[in-house]
Amino acid sequence: MVIKTETVKAIVFDTFGTVVDWRGSIIADLSQWGEASGVHADWSSLVDEWRGRYEPQKDRVRRGEIGWTNIDDLHFEALCSLLPEYGLSNLSDAQRMHVNRVWHRLNAWPDAVAGLNRLKKRYVIGPLSNGNIALLVNMAKHAELPWDSIFSCEHFQRYKPHPDTYLGVCRQMYLEPNEVMMCAAHNYDLAAARSVGLRTAFVPRPTEYGPGQTTDLEAKDDWDVVASDLQDLATKMGA
Amino acid sequence: MVIKTETVKAIVFDTFGTVVDWRGSIIADLSQWGEASGVHADWSSLVDEWRGRYEPQKDRVRRGEIGWTNIDDLHFEALCSLLPEYGLSNLSDAQRMHVNRVWHRLNAWPDAVAGLNRLKKRYVIGPLSNGNIALLVNMAKHAELPWDSIFSCEHFQRYKPHPDTYLGVCRQMYLEPNEVMMCAAHNYDLAAARSVGLRTAFVPRPTEYGPGQTTDLEAKDDWDVVASDLQDLATKMGA
Repeated sequence: MVIKTETVKAIVFDTFGTVVDWRGSIIADLSQWGEASGVHADWSSLVDEWRGRYEPQKDRVRRGEIGWTNIDDLHFEALCSLLPEYGLSNLSDAQRMHVNRVWHRLNAWPDAVAGLNRLKKRYVIGPLSNGNIALLVNMAKHAELPWDSIFSCEHFQRYKPHPDTYLGVCRQMYLEPNEVMMCAAHNYDLAAARSVGLRTAFVPRPTEYGPGQTTDLEAKDDWDVVASDLQDLATKMGA
Repeated sequence: MVIKTETVKAIVFDTFGTVVDWRGSIIADLSQWGEASGVHADWSSLVDEWRGRYEPQKDRVRRGEIGWTNIDDLHFEALCSLLPEYGLSNLSDAQRMHVNRVWHRLNAWPDAVAGLNRLKKRYVIGPLSNGNIALLVNMAKHAELPWDSIFSCEHFQRYKPHPDTYLGVCRQMYLEPNEVMMCAAHNYDLAAARSVGLRTAFVPRPTEYGPGQTTDLEAKDDWDVVASDLQDLATKMGA
Protein backbone atom coordinates (compact mmCIF):
# COMPACT_ATOMS: atom_id res chain seq x y z
CA MET A 1 0.00 0.00 0.00
CA VAL A 2 1.32 3.41 -0.94
CA ILE A 3 1.10 5.96 1.84
CA LYS A 4 0.22 9.13 0.02
CA THR A 5 1.81 11.36 2.60
CA GLU A 6 5.30 9.84 2.31
CA THR A 7 6.24 12.31 -0.41
CA VAL A 8 5.46 15.35 1.75
CA LYS A 9 8.34 17.75 2.47
CA ALA A 10 6.46 20.92 3.37
CA ILE A 11 3.16 21.53 5.15
CA VAL A 12 1.36 24.84 4.73
CA PHE A 13 -1.48 25.93 6.94
CA ASP A 14 -4.56 27.99 6.66
CA THR A 15 -4.27 30.33 9.65
CA PHE A 16 -7.59 32.06 10.52
CA GLY A 17 -9.56 29.32 12.25
CA THR A 18 -7.11 26.51 11.59
CA VAL A 19 -4.12 27.72 13.65
CA VAL A 20 -5.51 30.72 15.51
CA ASP A 21 -8.83 31.29 17.24
CA TRP A 22 -9.72 34.62 15.63
CA ARG A 23 -13.21 34.94 17.16
CA GLY A 24 -12.25 34.17 20.75
CA SER A 25 -9.07 36.23 20.51
CA ILE A 26 -10.78 39.31 19.11
CA ILE A 27 -13.64 39.28 21.60
CA ALA A 28 -11.16 38.97 24.49
CA ASP A 29 -8.76 41.59 23.10
CA LEU A 30 -11.37 44.23 22.30
CA SER A 31 -13.35 43.63 25.49
CA GLN A 32 -10.22 44.21 27.55
CA TRP A 33 -9.16 47.21 25.49
CA GLY A 34 -12.69 48.64 25.59
CA GLU A 35 -12.80 48.26 29.34
CA ALA A 36 -9.47 50.06 29.74
CA SER A 37 -10.35 52.77 27.20
CA GLY A 38 -13.94 53.38 28.21
CA VAL A 39 -15.19 52.19 24.82
CA HIS A 40 -18.22 49.94 25.17
CA ALA A 41 -19.81 47.86 22.44
CA ASP A 42 -21.24 44.46 21.68
CA TRP A 43 -17.91 43.11 20.53
CA SER A 44 -19.18 39.58 19.83
CA SER A 45 -21.77 40.81 17.37
CA LEU A 46 -19.34 43.27 15.83
CA VAL A 47 -16.77 40.53 15.27
CA ASP A 48 -19.30 38.20 13.68
CA GLU A 49 -20.60 40.88 11.37
CA TRP A 50 -17.05 42.04 10.58
CA ARG A 51 -16.02 38.53 9.63
CA GLY A 52 -19.23 38.16 7.65
CA ARG A 53 -18.07 40.88 5.28
CA TYR A 54 -14.86 39.01 4.54
CA GLU A 55 -15.90 36.52 1.86
CA PRO A 56 -18.03 39.03 -0.08
CA GLN A 57 -15.10 41.48 0.00
CA LYS A 58 -12.64 38.88 -1.28
CA ASP A 59 -15.16 37.89 -3.94
CA ARG A 60 -15.03 41.43 -5.29
CA VAL A 61 -11.25 41.10 -5.61
CA ARG A 62 -11.57 37.59 -7.08
CA ARG A 63 -14.02 38.83 -9.73
CA GLY A 64 -11.77 41.76 -10.56
CA GLU A 65 -14.37 44.36 -9.52
CA ILE A 66 -11.62 46.01 -7.48
CA GLY A 67 -7.87 45.69 -7.86
CA TRP A 68 -5.69 43.73 -5.49
CA THR A 69 -6.51 44.85 -1.94
CA ASN A 70 -4.95 43.18 1.07
CA ILE A 71 -6.75 41.95 4.15
CA ASP A 72 -5.69 44.82 6.40
CA ASP A 73 -7.28 47.23 3.94
CA LEU A 74 -10.42 45.10 3.49
CA HIS A 75 -10.75 44.81 7.27
CA PHE A 76 -10.40 48.57 7.67
CA GLU A 77 -13.04 49.32 5.07
CA ALA A 78 -15.50 46.89 6.66
CA LEU A 79 -14.74 48.10 10.18
CA CYS A 80 -15.33 51.75 9.36
CA SER A 81 -18.64 50.92 7.70
CA LEU A 82 -19.79 48.94 10.77
CA LEU A 83 -18.81 51.42 13.47
CA PRO A 84 -21.97 53.62 13.29
CA GLU A 85 -24.41 50.79 14.05
CA TYR A 86 -22.29 49.85 17.08
CA GLY A 87 -22.25 53.39 18.41
CA LEU A 88 -18.55 53.73 17.70
CA SER A 89 -18.51 56.57 15.16
CA ASN A 90 -16.41 58.64 17.51
CA LEU A 91 -13.36 56.37 17.47
CA SER A 92 -10.25 58.31 16.53
CA ASP A 93 -8.02 57.30 13.62
CA ALA A 94 -5.52 55.83 16.07
CA GLN A 95 -8.26 53.84 17.81
CA ARG A 96 -9.63 52.55 14.51
CA MET A 97 -6.14 51.43 13.54
CA HIS A 98 -5.66 49.73 16.91
CA VAL A 99 -8.95 47.88 16.53
CA ASN A 100 -8.16 46.91 12.93
CA ARG A 101 -4.78 45.54 13.95
CA VAL A 102 -6.48 43.13 16.37
CA TRP A 103 -6.13 40.64 13.50
CA HIS A 104 -2.35 40.83 14.07
CA ARG A 105 -2.82 39.87 17.74
CA LEU A 106 -4.67 36.55 17.46
CA ASN A 107 -3.93 33.65 19.79
CA ALA A 108 -3.24 30.08 18.75
CA TRP A 109 -5.56 27.21 19.56
CA PRO A 110 -4.18 25.35 22.60
CA ASP A 111 -2.66 22.50 20.54
CA ALA A 112 -1.18 24.60 17.75
CA VAL A 113 2.22 25.79 18.97
CA ALA A 114 3.26 22.40 20.35
CA GLY A 115 2.03 20.64 17.21
CA LEU A 116 3.83 23.04 14.90
CA ASN A 117 7.07 22.76 16.86
CA ARG A 118 6.96 18.98 16.39
CA LEU A 119 6.13 19.25 12.69
CA LYS A 120 8.90 21.82 12.13
CA LYS A 121 11.53 19.22 13.05
CA ARG A 122 10.59 17.08 10.07
CA TYR A 123 8.94 19.42 7.57
CA VAL A 124 9.17 22.93 6.23
CA ILE A 125 6.16 24.68 7.76
CA GLY A 126 4.51 27.96 6.94
CA PRO A 127 1.15 29.65 6.69
CA LEU A 128 -0.58 29.76 3.33
CA SER A 129 -3.09 32.36 4.28
CA ASN A 130 -5.17 35.10 2.77
CA GLY A 131 -3.68 37.29 5.50
CA ASN A 132 -1.15 39.85 4.35
CA ILE A 133 2.55 39.59 5.07
CA ALA A 134 2.80 42.05 7.97
CA LEU A 135 -0.28 40.55 9.59
CA LEU A 136 1.13 37.02 9.40
CA VAL A 137 4.57 38.05 10.67
CA ASN A 138 3.11 40.02 13.56
CA MET A 139 0.65 37.22 14.36
CA ALA A 140 3.50 34.72 14.45
CA LYS A 141 5.48 36.90 16.88
CA HIS A 142 2.41 37.41 19.07
CA ALA A 143 1.27 33.77 19.11
CA GLU A 144 4.77 32.24 18.95
CA LEU A 145 4.10 30.33 15.75
CA PRO A 146 7.44 28.82 14.67
CA TRP A 147 7.08 29.22 10.90
CA ASP A 148 10.03 28.53 8.63
CA SER A 149 8.72 31.12 6.22
CA ILE A 150 5.60 33.13 5.49
CA PHE A 151 3.60 32.24 2.39
CA SER A 152 0.99 34.95 2.02
CA CYS A 153 -1.56 35.36 -0.71
CA GLU A 154 -0.24 38.92 -0.84
CA HIS A 155 2.91 37.47 -2.40
CA PHE A 156 0.82 35.99 -5.19
CA GLN A 157 -1.74 38.83 -5.41
CA ARG A 158 -4.48 36.19 -5.50
CA TYR A 159 -6.83 34.96 -2.81
CA LYS A 160 -7.35 31.30 -2.07
CA PRO A 161 -8.77 29.14 -3.53
CA HIS A 162 -7.04 30.42 -6.71
CA PRO A 163 -4.64 27.71 -7.99
CA ASP A 164 -1.79 30.26 -8.19
CA THR A 165 -1.64 30.36 -4.40
CA TYR A 166 -1.09 26.62 -3.85
CA LEU A 167 1.13 26.27 -6.91
CA GLY A 168 2.98 29.42 -5.92
CA VAL A 169 4.30 27.69 -2.82
CA CYS A 170 5.43 24.72 -4.93
CA ARG A 171 7.16 27.00 -7.42
CA GLN A 172 8.90 29.12 -4.76
CA MET A 173 10.10 26.02 -2.91
CA TYR A 174 11.02 23.94 -6.01
CA LEU A 175 8.65 21.25 -4.78
CA GLU A 176 6.23 19.08 -6.73
CA PRO A 177 2.57 19.44 -5.70
CA ASN A 178 2.63 16.00 -4.05
CA GLU A 179 5.52 17.19 -1.88
CA VAL A 180 3.36 19.92 -0.31
CA MET A 181 0.48 19.31 2.09
CA MET A 182 -2.26 21.84 2.75
CA CYS A 183 -3.72 21.72 6.25
CA ALA A 184 -7.01 23.49 6.89
CA ALA A 185 -10.18 23.42 8.95
CA HIS A 186 -12.14 24.28 5.79
CA ASN A 187 -13.13 21.69 3.22
CA TYR A 188 -13.23 24.17 0.30
CA ASP A 189 -9.56 25.03 0.85
CA LEU A 190 -8.53 21.38 0.74
CA ALA A 191 -10.65 20.69 -2.34
CA ALA A 192 -8.86 23.48 -4.19
CA ALA A 193 -5.45 22.30 -3.00
CA ARG A 194 -6.18 18.71 -4.05
CA SER A 195 -7.42 19.81 -7.45
CA VAL A 196 -3.91 21.03 -8.28
CA GLY A 197 -2.17 18.00 -6.79
CA LEU A 198 -1.31 18.93 -3.20
CA ARG A 199 -1.73 16.52 -0.31
CA THR A 200 -4.43 17.43 2.20
CA ALA A 201 -4.99 17.37 5.96
CA PHE A 202 -8.22 18.31 7.69
CA VAL A 203 -8.39 19.48 11.29
CA PRO A 204 -11.88 20.29 12.59
CA ARG A 205 -12.38 23.54 14.50
CA PRO A 206 -16.06 23.24 15.40
CA THR A 207 -16.17 26.41 17.49
CA GLU A 208 -14.26 28.69 15.12
CA TYR A 209 -17.46 30.63 14.41
CA GLY A 210 -18.77 30.29 17.94
CA PRO A 211 -21.14 27.83 19.62
CA GLY A 212 -23.69 27.78 16.78
CA GLN A 213 -21.30 26.81 13.97
CA THR A 214 -22.93 24.69 11.26
CA THR A 215 -20.19 24.44 8.62
CA ASP A 216 -16.99 22.40 8.37
CA LEU A 217 -17.86 20.34 11.41
CA GLU A 218 -16.28 17.34 9.75
CA ALA A 219 -14.25 16.17 6.78
CA LYS A 220 -16.38 16.22 3.62
CA ASP A 221 -14.03 14.14 1.51
CA ASP A 222 -11.40 11.44 1.92
CA TRP A 223 -8.58 13.85 2.72
CA ASP A 224 -5.13 12.26 3.00
CA VAL A 225 -5.10 12.89 6.74
CA VAL A 226 -7.92 13.75 9.13
CA ALA A 227 -6.52 14.73 12.52
CA SER A 228 -8.25 15.89 15.68
CA ASP A 229 -5.82 18.79 16.10
CA LEU A 230 -2.23 19.82 15.23
CA GLN A 231 -0.71 17.59 17.90
CA ASP A 232 -2.57 14.65 16.35
CA LEU A 233 -1.42 15.79 12.88
CA ALA A 234 2.18 15.70 14.11
CA THR A 235 1.67 12.16 15.36
CA LYS A 236 0.01 11.04 12.14
CA MET A 237 2.79 12.63 10.07
CA GLY A 238 5.49 10.88 12.09
CA ALA A 239 6.86 14.06 13.61
CA MET B 1 21.13 63.13 22.02
CA VAL B 2 18.85 61.17 19.71
CA ILE B 3 19.79 57.54 19.41
CA LYS B 4 19.10 56.79 15.79
CA THR B 5 18.43 53.12 16.41
CA GLU B 6 15.56 53.67 18.87
CA THR B 7 13.04 53.68 16.05
CA VAL B 8 14.07 50.24 14.79
CA LYS B 9 11.41 47.50 14.84
CA ALA B 10 12.82 45.07 12.28
CA ILE B 11 16.36 44.06 11.37
CA VAL B 12 17.08 42.43 8.03
CA PHE B 13 20.33 40.72 7.23
CA ASP B 14 22.47 40.10 4.25
CA THR B 15 23.09 36.36 4.44
CA PHE B 16 26.01 35.23 2.22
CA GLY B 17 29.06 36.30 4.19
CA THR B 18 27.19 38.21 6.89
CA VAL B 19 25.28 35.35 8.55
CA VAL B 20 26.72 32.26 6.88
CA ASP B 21 30.28 31.32 5.95
CA TRP B 22 29.66 30.33 2.34
CA ARG B 23 33.30 29.73 1.41
CA GLY B 24 34.25 27.57 4.39
CA SER B 25 30.95 25.68 4.26
CA ILE B 26 31.19 24.87 0.56
CA ILE B 27 34.80 23.73 0.70
CA ALA B 28 34.00 21.45 3.64
CA ASP B 29 30.77 20.11 2.14
CA LEU B 30 32.15 19.37 -1.32
CA SER B 31 35.44 17.96 0.00
CA GLN B 32 33.52 15.50 2.15
CA TRP B 33 31.07 14.65 -0.61
CA GLY B 34 33.90 14.29 -3.14
CA GLU B 35 35.77 11.96 -0.81
CA ALA B 36 32.67 9.79 -0.33
CA SER B 37 31.75 9.84 -4.02
CA GLY B 38 35.22 9.43 -5.52
CA VAL B 39 35.00 12.86 -7.15
CA HIS B 40 38.25 14.78 -6.78
CA ALA B 41 38.81 18.44 -7.59
CA ASP B 42 40.42 21.61 -6.29
CA TRP B 43 37.26 22.67 -4.48
CA SER B 44 38.77 25.85 -3.01
CA SER B 45 39.65 27.22 -6.42
CA LEU B 46 36.35 26.13 -7.88
CA VAL B 47 34.42 27.90 -5.14
CA ASP B 48 36.39 31.10 -5.54
CA GLU B 49 35.92 31.11 -9.30
CA TRP B 50 32.24 30.15 -8.93
CA ARG B 51 31.62 33.04 -6.56
CA GLY B 52 33.62 35.32 -8.87
CA ARG B 53 31.00 34.84 -11.56
CA TYR B 54 28.23 36.02 -9.22
CA GLU B 55 28.44 39.81 -9.46
CA PRO B 56 28.91 39.85 -13.26
CA GLN B 57 25.90 37.51 -13.58
CA LYS B 58 23.71 39.70 -11.40
CA ASP B 59 24.91 42.74 -13.34
CA ARG B 60 23.47 41.20 -16.50
CA VAL B 61 20.10 40.89 -14.74
CA ARG B 62 20.41 44.40 -13.28
CA ARG B 63 21.11 45.88 -16.72
CA GLY B 64 18.19 43.98 -18.20
CA GLU B 65 20.38 41.99 -20.60
CA ILE B 66 18.59 38.89 -19.38
CA GLY B 67 15.21 38.62 -17.67
CA TRP B 68 14.80 37.90 -13.99
CA THR B 69 16.89 34.83 -13.16
CA ASN B 70 17.21 33.59 -9.61
CA ILE B 71 20.41 32.65 -7.83
CA ASP B 72 19.94 28.89 -8.09
CA ASP B 73 19.73 29.24 -11.85
CA LEU B 74 22.67 31.67 -12.04
CA HIS B 75 24.72 29.30 -9.88
CA PHE B 76 23.83 26.35 -12.09
CA GLU B 77 24.80 28.15 -15.26
CA ALA B 78 28.15 29.21 -13.80
CA LEU B 79 28.83 25.79 -12.32
CA CYS B 80 28.24 23.96 -15.58
CA SER B 81 30.53 26.34 -17.43
CA LEU B 82 33.31 25.81 -14.86
CA LEU B 83 33.19 22.01 -14.61
CA PRO B 84 35.39 21.24 -17.66
CA GLU B 85 38.42 23.15 -16.38
CA TYR B 86 38.17 21.27 -13.08
CA GLY B 87 38.02 17.87 -14.77
CA LEU B 88 34.40 17.41 -13.73
CA SER B 89 32.66 17.20 -17.10
CA ASN B 90 31.46 13.71 -16.27
CA LEU B 91 29.25 14.70 -13.35
CA SER B 92 25.73 13.39 -13.82
CA ASP B 93 22.71 15.67 -13.76
CA ALA B 94 21.91 14.51 -10.23
CA GLN B 95 25.49 15.22 -9.12
CA ARG B 96 25.45 18.68 -10.69
CA MET B 97 22.22 19.43 -8.88
CA HIS B 98 23.65 18.16 -5.60
CA VAL B 99 26.73 20.36 -6.01
CA ASN B 100 24.62 23.38 -6.99
CA ARG B 101 22.41 22.94 -3.95
CA VAL B 102 25.45 23.26 -1.68
CA TRP B 103 24.38 26.92 -1.42
CA HIS B 104 21.30 25.66 0.48
CA ARG B 105 23.56 23.86 2.99
CA LEU B 106 25.71 26.70 4.30
CA ASN B 107 26.68 26.95 7.96
CA ALA B 108 26.33 29.99 10.17
CA TRP B 109 29.31 31.89 11.57
CA PRO B 110 29.84 30.79 15.20
CA ASP B 111 28.18 33.88 16.72
CA ALA B 112 25.21 34.07 14.35
CA VAL B 113 22.55 31.72 15.75
CA ALA B 114 22.95 32.89 19.34
CA GLY B 115 22.97 36.54 18.26
CA LEU B 116 19.87 36.12 16.10
CA ASN B 117 18.00 34.31 18.86
CA ARG B 118 18.66 37.26 21.15
CA LEU B 119 17.64 39.83 18.52
CA LYS B 120 14.47 37.88 17.68
CA LYS B 121 13.12 38.51 21.18
CA ARG B 122 13.02 42.25 20.58
CA TYR B 123 12.86 42.70 16.80
CA VAL B 124 11.34 41.14 13.72
CA ILE B 125 14.30 39.49 12.01
CA GLY B 126 14.70 38.12 8.52
CA PRO B 127 17.18 37.80 5.70
CA LEU B 128 17.14 40.41 2.95
CA SER B 129 19.22 38.46 0.54
CA ASN B 130 19.81 38.04 -3.14
CA GLY B 131 19.31 34.32 -2.46
CA ASN B 132 16.07 32.84 -3.75
CA ILE B 133 13.23 31.79 -1.48
CA ALA B 134 13.81 28.02 -1.46
CA LEU B 135 17.53 28.55 -0.90
CA LEU B 136 16.92 30.84 2.08
CA VAL B 137 14.30 28.55 3.64
CA ASN B 138 16.48 25.48 3.23
CA MET B 139 19.55 27.34 4.50
CA ALA B 140 17.60 28.43 7.59
CA LYS B 141 16.54 24.84 8.31
CA HIS B 142 20.10 23.60 7.80
CA ALA B 143 21.83 26.30 9.83
CA GLU B 144 19.02 26.78 12.39
CA LEU B 145 18.56 30.45 11.63
CA PRO B 146 15.47 31.58 13.59
CA TRP B 147 14.01 33.98 11.02
CA ASP B 148 10.55 35.44 11.56
CA SER B 149 10.08 35.59 7.81
CA ILE B 150 12.06 35.35 4.61
CA PHE B 151 12.57 38.51 2.60
CA SER B 152 14.14 37.42 -0.67
CA CYS B 153 15.04 39.55 -3.65
CA GLU B 154 13.11 36.91 -5.59
CA HIS B 155 9.96 38.37 -4.04
CA PHE B 156 10.83 41.75 -5.52
CA GLN B 157 12.39 40.45 -8.77
CA ARG B 158 15.27 42.88 -8.23
CA TYR B 159 18.76 42.32 -6.92
CA LYS B 160 20.27 44.44 -4.20
CA PRO B 161 21.28 47.25 -4.14
CA HIS B 162 18.11 48.22 -6.04
CA PRO B 163 15.98 50.50 -3.81
CA ASP B 164 12.90 48.31 -4.40
CA THR B 165 14.46 45.58 -2.28
CA TYR B 166 14.97 47.67 0.88
CA LEU B 167 11.74 49.60 0.42
CA GLY B 168 9.94 46.36 -0.39
CA VAL B 169 10.55 45.13 3.15
CA CYS B 170 9.20 48.41 4.54
CA ARG B 171 6.13 48.23 2.34
CA GLN B 172 5.37 44.58 3.13
CA MET B 173 5.78 45.18 6.87
CA TYR B 174 4.01 48.58 6.99
CA LEU B 175 7.16 50.07 8.48
CA GLU B 176 8.83 53.39 7.81
CA PRO B 177 12.41 53.17 6.48
CA ASN B 178 13.79 54.39 9.83
CA GLU B 179 12.02 51.47 11.51
CA VAL B 180 14.05 48.93 9.52
CA MET B 181 17.77 48.27 9.98
CA MET B 182 19.94 46.61 7.35
CA CYS B 183 22.81 44.55 8.74
CA ALA B 184 25.61 43.53 6.39
CA ALA B 185 29.29 42.79 6.17
CA HIS B 186 29.40 44.79 2.93
CA ASN B 187 29.64 48.56 2.83
CA TYR B 188 27.91 48.89 -0.58
CA ASP B 189 24.78 47.19 0.79
CA LEU B 190 24.58 49.59 3.74
CA ALA B 191 25.18 52.62 1.54
CA ALA B 192 22.22 51.62 -0.63
CA ALA B 193 20.02 50.93 2.40
CA ARG B 194 20.92 54.28 3.96
CA SER B 195 20.24 56.14 0.74
CA VAL B 196 16.56 55.17 1.02
CA GLY B 197 16.34 55.87 4.74
CA LEU B 198 17.03 52.57 6.48
CA ARG B 199 19.17 52.30 9.59
CA THR B 200 22.46 50.47 9.14
CA ALA B 201 24.65 48.01 11.03
CA PHE B 202 28.07 46.81 9.89
CA VAL B 203 29.60 43.52 11.02
CA PRO B 204 33.04 42.75 9.61
CA ARG B 205 33.67 39.28 8.20
CA PRO B 206 37.34 39.60 7.26
CA THR B 207 37.75 35.97 6.16
CA GLU B 208 34.55 35.67 4.13
CA TYR B 209 36.63 35.46 0.95
CA GLY B 210 39.44 33.49 2.57
CA PRO B 211 42.73 34.51 4.14
CA GLY B 212 43.67 37.02 1.43
CA GLN B 213 40.55 39.17 1.60
CA THR B 214 41.16 42.84 0.82
CA THR B 215 37.63 44.30 0.75
CA ASP B 216 35.16 45.24 3.48
CA LEU B 217 37.71 44.72 6.22
CA GLU B 218 36.19 47.63 8.08
CA ALA B 219 33.31 50.12 8.13
CA LYS B 220 33.76 52.72 5.40
CA ASP B 221 31.17 55.16 6.71
CA ASP B 222 29.61 56.19 10.02
CA TRP B 223 27.02 53.41 10.05
CA ASP B 224 24.47 53.62 12.88
CA VAL B 225 26.00 50.58 14.54
CA VAL B 226 29.35 48.90 14.01
CA ALA B 227 29.48 45.58 15.84
CA SER B 228 32.17 42.92 16.04
CA ASP B 229 29.66 40.14 15.35
CA LEU B 230 25.95 39.33 15.78
CA GLN B 231 26.27 38.71 19.52
CA ASP B 232 27.78 42.18 19.83
CA LEU B 233 25.00 43.58 17.62
CA ALA B 234 22.43 42.07 20.00
CA THR B 235 24.16 43.74 22.93
CA LYS B 236 24.38 47.09 21.14
CA MET B 237 20.70 46.88 20.15
CA GLY B 238 19.62 46.15 23.71
CA ALA B 239 18.47 42.61 22.97
